[in-house]
Amino acid sequence: MCQNCPQPQGFLAELIDSGLLIDTGVDGLYGRSGLFEEVIARFDDLITRHGGQDGAEIVRFPPAMSRKHFEKSGYLKSFPQLAGTVHSFAGDERAHAQLLHNVADGVDWTDGQISTEVVLTPAACYPLYPVVAKRGPLKTEGALFDLQSYCFRHEPSKDPARMQLFRMREYVRFGTPEQVTEFRATWLDRGQAMMASLGVPLNLDVANDPFFGRAGRMLANNQRDQRLKFELLIPIESEEKPTACLSFNYHQDHFGTTWGIETAAGETAHTACVGFGMERVALALFKHHGYDVERWPASVRNVLWP
Amino acid sequence: MCQNCPQPQGFLAELIDSGLLIDTGVDGLYGRSGLFEEVIARFDDLITRHGGQDGAEIVRFPPAMSRKHFEKSGYLKSFPQLAGTVHSFAGDERAHAQLLHNVADGVDWTDGQISTEVVLTPAACYPLYPVVAKRGPLKTEGALFDLQSYCFRHEPSKDPARMQLFRMREYVRFGTPEQVTEFRATWLDRGQAMMASLGVPLNLDVANDPFFGRAGRMLANNQRDQRLKFELLIPIESEEKPTACLSFNYHQDHFGTTWGIETAAGETAHTACVGFGMERVALALFKHHGYDVERWPASVRNVLWP
Repeated sequence: MCQNCPQPQGFLAELIDSGLLIDTGVDGLYGRSGLFEEVIARFDDLITRHGGQDGAEIVRFPPAMSRKHFEKSGYLKSFPQLAGTVHSFAGDERAHAQLLHNVADGVDWTDGQISTEVVLTPAACYPLYPVVAKRGPLKTEGALFDLQSYCFRHEPSKDPARMQLFRMREYVRFGTPEQVTEFRATWLDRGQAMMASLGVPLNLDVANDPFFGRAGRMLANNQRDQRLKFELLIPIESEEKPTACLSFNYHQDHFGTTWGIETAAGETAHTACVGFGMERVALALFKHHGYDVERWPASVRNVLWP
Repeated sequence: MCQNCPQPQGFLAELIDSGLLIDTGVDGLYGRSGLFEEVIARFDDLITRHGGQDGAEIVRFPPAMSRKHFEKSGYLKSFPQLAGTVHSFAGDERAHAQLLHNVADGVDWTDGQISTEVVLTPAACYPLYPVVAKRGPLKTEGALFDLQSYCFRHEPSKDPARMQLFRMREYVRFGTPEQVTEFRATWLDRGQAMMASLGVPLNLDVANDPFFGRAGRMLANNQRDQRLKFELLIPIESEEKPTACLSFNYHQDHFGTTWGIETAAGETAHTACVGFGMERVALALFKHHGYDVERWPASVRNVLWP
């Protein structure tokens, strides 16, 4: 244990002391206890109980995606600072010997790593769009998918609700603007009802995404002005700055145009998604109901363990 | 769809045609269907039924680990070619503009990415050892952990059983040499019985890990000669070269020495693990019982859906 390193404080320290999260020495990267995972699984099941009757196609991607697809997605325009590319060693035995010397000497050995064909998934739906595009035009009723994966965002933080690696569950809707906005409206209601049943304080607001740079400020203004993305906020690390735990995002034709996805009528498809921050919701539950799940309110326990 | 690209063939093509796996354009990186995930979940549950009574502490790590811990682990000595480091953009707006130009022009834009504090997890147990070390000496009875995570190995392949990102479940035992070798002996029996109940052809052999370079050949010989690692092999992509689906690995005092883990008596702890390749077992089941799980042998269905 590093005696000179700053030790975690506040809610993060409590989570680590209680054993729910396990310190790895990297801010935003934690092991999870069996109990923490149980709460995640129960919330995952709750989502399915609210959304499972819609007939979504279940797809699960690993936590990385094709770099080519990522480049095409437009993510690098908005959030270059959050992306994580995966690099690998491709040298010979001599280069390997040098690498090991550098590791032993504490010298940066990662210079020689070259980028692979994959990047870490920034949001659960990013690998989906090229897959849907490849299938050809949508059916008349559009399409609906159920996703979950670990996602990466390079934003090291002492706020336990801002992890570098976290799970996002998503439903993603493809179709006409009417189909897609109806989906989002349905989930705006459902999501609020679902989270209210968990007995946590809620607040719906337009999103405030961390777009990069000056050009990014215009994108952020546009997102707010057009009310393209809403977030369901719950106070976790701070009362003043509550944490977005669910988001409801209308992409308009952004992904439809990017990937050439068409409706049955030959129009560019619109898309929308509802995203669930799995760790954030679990943290909100521990924050507001305590570390002993046996002592959570009966109403909340009945919802999660029906 | 790329008309000029080589299309998947054989078992991989069948898996993609059946919808169980979803092509992402990158060899070894696939989406999974709901049915594929259901089989993984059923096998995960089967493992718990065989190992759950041992009182293992459940820990779940995200698919990346601390780079410092990874450097110390010794993995780079043996398998530098398989590791994946995670890199991020840390430039200003001018660098961002250049990055976007490079992406648009098809020029490599990843040169400017700098390594973060994390690397992708190479095996589920790697993040665990420093955590156990930090807790201090083991109790008299040693320690036992239950892990599962996505793991990364940079070995692009058309063999569906050789994925770049796959899940590994593990039980990891810490203790005296006697405690640890008894654990491995128990799981050698259990693992074979468990897999035999799934009606797939099995073969136990000493492991044949892809150690890097000429020095690596010595490590591989040592591993074989000392019978440190056994693998339970099932033919999947090839009859002649069956695939390791479970492994039983006695690390001796390698991790105990590396991390300074001590037994209650103050000796260097020994460790062993049993690892389950989740995707490989699911693929073996589809290979030997077909794509329609409703038509799998009743004996196998009864084991997986008790």
